[in-house]
Amino acid sequence: MTTWSAPVRFAEADQQGIAFNAHYLTWCDEAMTAWLREIELPYDGLLARGLDTRLVASALQWAAPVRWGDVVEVDAAAERVGRTSFVVRFEVHVGGRACCTVATTYVLTDLDGVPRPVPDDVRARLTGEPAATLPA
Amino acid sequence: MTTWSAPVRFAEADQQGIAFNAHYLTWCDEAMTAWLREIELPYDGLLARGLDTRLVASALQWAAPVRWGDVVEVDAAAERVGRTSFVVRFEVHVGGRACCTVATTYVLTDLDGVPRPVPDDVRARLTGEPAATLPA
Amino acid sequence: MTTWSAPVRFAEADQQGIAFNAHYLTWCDEAMTAWLREIELPYDGLLARGLDTRLVASALQWAAPVRWGDVVEVDAAAERVGRTSFVVRFEVHVGGRACCTVATTYVLTDLDGVPRPVPDDVRARLTGEPAATLPA
Amino acid sequence: MTTWSAPVRFAEADQQGIAFNAHYLTWCDEAMTAWLREIELPYDGLLARGLDTRLVASALQWAAPVRWGDVVEVDAAAERVGRTSFVVRFEVHVGGRACCTVATTYVLTDLDGVPRPVPDDVRARLTGEPAATLPA
Repeated sequence: MTTWSAPVRFAEADQQGIAFNAHYLTWCDEAMTAWLREIELPYDGLLARGLDTRLVASALQWAAPVRWGDVVEVDAAAERVGRTSFVVRFEVHVGGRACCTVATTYVLTDLDGVPRPVPDDVRARLTGEPAATLPA
Repeated sequence: MTTWSAPVRFAEADQQGIAFNAHYLTWCDEAMTAWLREIELPYDGLLARGLDTRLVASALQWAAPVRWGDVVEVDAAAERVGRTSFVVRFEVHVGGRACCTVATTYVLTDLDGVPRPVPDDVRARLTGEPAATLPA
Repeated sequence: MTTWSAPVRFAEADQQGIAFNAHYLTWCDEAMTAWLREIELPYDGLLARGLDTRLVASALQWAAPVRWGDVVEVDAAAERVGRTSFVVRFEVHVGGRACCTVATTYVLTDLDGVPRPVPDDVRARLTGEPAATLPA
Repeated sequence: MTTWSAPVRFAEADQQGIAFNAHYLTWCDEAMTAWLREIELPYDGLLARGLDTRLVASALQWAAPVRWGDVVEVDAAAERVGRTSFVVRFEVHVGGRACCTVATTYVLTDLDGVPRPVPDDVRARLTGEPAATLPA
């Protein structure tokens, strides 16, 4: 299932006619927000519980370029959920052509930026366990 | 006197090898901040007095393109100071070659966004009257 | 009828929580491409006929801010078609709330950048005359 | 020695008042161009020899945020030079405060994008061997 999708903008393509590398992080940021909504863990809900996320690392690996007019699709999934951090894996593709894989590590914090253990229900939603076992 | 200057970034040039139009507004925004500092009217000083600015209009006119590697220079000057608004004129050039003129209208407001008359000392600094007549 | 639409991206909002002014030009650029396709005057079709467009001016007028999460919609229409140039008017809105009007002037050129008279069929499509009177 | 430096732009800071993550890749891209010039291996010189580079991976690790008005400095150095690829390590800092480390892998290619062995003189410049041993 595709989490986020958008046509590549003219302003995102460089002189070589391909999307400039930095824009992949912008797309994944949008995909992250969309994915958190999809798994019923919206960002403002986290904030309301006194939780926030901090980006600590991001590793991009390119397989093929994307061009102006291509429609970029991004799929997201948790790759690993640790005690206070988790890794989300983004697959950026154009139709069936894999273009870039991005693995981004977030730390869960309180609103002062202090790392906090990932609560059980957050962990369950991140890893995709059955919603039936989750609190309303 | 040049107010703000920067080399055109690779990511700012489009498939035609010229800087994408939107970036001119980003450059003028940086030039505005630099200019306010130059005329001793820094933005945080305005905020400290309970004043803010709101962008209401911007008119760009291009004369020549700029390319990756060109060093863009932006000069700023007040074109008109009204009762609650003022127009700043930005000249974007590369060396002696004029590339774009941008006239931007700001409204002076209080911190709730309500328009406020331009105080005399702010008017004097915007129009470049001798500093001797200004309050310390 | 809305020509182009997209959710405001997190990276497009500034420290004040509103979309930074330069992004309006990026959105209008996307809307222009979409509109040319809508009126059956796609950009690559122009190029194939030896025609290109050059941006000469753009005037933006803001009425209300847009925020992260707002879905920006842009409508486009020709405001004026001259001998070698034309003005496109973009209405940027969020639902029924008007946010920004952008009037952008393009010159029609040959592939060497020399201005060229707007051909009758191009003029007809820009102004929205009945397609029946146009060449296939 | 600092390879590239620029004040953080207002448009680069997000709603949290810190530079949005994607911009680090833009800064490193500028630093890469500046560094290639510094080591007398300018990008257009590579192209003139029928060589190009292709970005294959980039790994960012953040240590501290940067804010609007901070002056970002980026240092570059080769971390590893392989047979057809090399890794450049970028240290992004604000004064003495380390903010982000970026390790970017490039493949050296011919102008058709086919990987090519790194020539000895290119390897020497990347690794910083004495210029005396290099061809003029």
